[in-house]
Amino acid sequence: MLKIYGVYKSRATRPLWLAGELGLAFEHVPVLQARKLDDPLAGDAQINTRTPAFLELCPMGVIPAIEDDGLVLFESMAINLYLAKKHGGPLAPTDLREDALMTQWSFFGATEIETNALKISSAAAEGRLESSRDEVEAAARLLKRPFAVLERHFADNDYLVGGRFTVADINLAEIVRYAQAYTPLFDAHPKLKAWLARCQSRAAFKAMWERRLSEPTP
Amino acid sequence: MLKIYGVYKSRATRPLWLAGELGLAFEHVPVLQARKLDDPLAGDAQINTRTPAFLELCPMGVIPAIEDDGLVLFESMAINLYLAKKHGGPLAPTDLREDALMTQWSFFGATEIETNALKISSAAAEGRLESSRDEVEAAARLLKRPFAVLERHFADNDYLVGGRFTVADINLAEIVRYAQAYTPLFDAHPKLKAWLARCQSRAAFKAMWERRLSEPTP
Repeated sequence: MLKIYGVYKSRATRPLWLAGELGLAFEHVPVLQARKLDDPLAGDAQINTRTPAFLELCPMGVIPAIEDDGLVLFESMAINLYLAKKHGGPLAPTDLREDALMTQWSFFGATEIETNALKISSAAAEGRLESSRDEVEAAARLLKRPFAVLERHFADNDYLVGGRFTVADINLAEIVRYAQAYTPLFDAHPKLKAWLARCQSRAAFKAMWERRLSEPTP
Repeated sequence: MLKIYGVYKSRATRPLWLAGELGLAFEHVPVLQARKLDDPLAGDAQINTRTPAFLELCPMGVIPAIEDDGLVLFESMAINLYLAKKHGGPLAPTDLREDALMTQWSFFGATEIETNALKISSAAAEGRLESSRDEVEAAARLLKRPFAVLERHFADNDYLVGGRFTVADINLAEIVRYAQAYTPLFDAHPKLKAWLARCQSRAAFKAMWERRLSEPTP
């Protein structure tokens, strides 16, 4: 059976949401980020990203990772593209062009958005959106260009690829979400904001989010 | 005909190398990075990443981009995975598992290596490997973990996926190359160093590199 390694409060949300969309049976192994070893979850989780057993499986020591019929994969975007293509259906590419575009948007999120969006997410999680205003606004400024590209795309399209909700939307929405606490950025990009709301209104996102919220927090 | 946008002194080396490996006929459009507008090439290049004609094609204003039978793609890793899969042969994945692993290693390069490797590359290009020693060593320290993962992989494998040279090797080698000027890092990872030398000994890499060297420099 598919195993998904990584607590809900990590990038493991990406394959966990996708697995819900696809209705996949899977075993969830709540591996913790090593830097969160003082997390109340640590006792239950047993393993973290620096545990020898996990490093044997995934030498990079990162979550999420998956094990699927003997294939071990890490890098959340690659995991999701693989699972979508393996199981087919509307979330998967129908041809090589869609595959290329879904891969493009996944790289776009990882390389053009994630670093700056994470600065906003960290500030929000630590209650310092106000006290770290300069840092947050600098990150938001750097997000204007990729967000403008998306705003333009969503002016003509409801979704990223093929006119339907796909794995590309999951991959990008989970990255764009990191910036969500800084509302001026989304008010300035209403089409992008509406797309994110469409993605997050899906039953599988909500079910994943519920489980995330019920996970113990540090 | 396939068009590849981007000067040789940019991430366009990635699709340009791949196109050489595949023996593809293509038109090269030497679009410049906008920040290099004072580059001597600018007169010949005509267009740069902020030229309206290029932004119309690629709203993100980044190179490389390609146009292939009406498909416009950006993000170099996605471009290369697409071109390899389209043209098949030994560089392309033979099945979904290989596809997943090639995609994984491409994301691994982009997310775990590129940012720090670029710091070394910039310092070397600006002749400040010595004067920026603290910055370079800090970047090198952050590369130890991903490089250790690769060292372990290349202890048992000549290449990243499937025991043969593939698009994954091109994608990762072009990122690892950014750190190449800091030799202690490679001396400490001899298997990785040997893999990079294997990749760079290929005729298509050398031909691409020759063209890059003959491009006017700022």
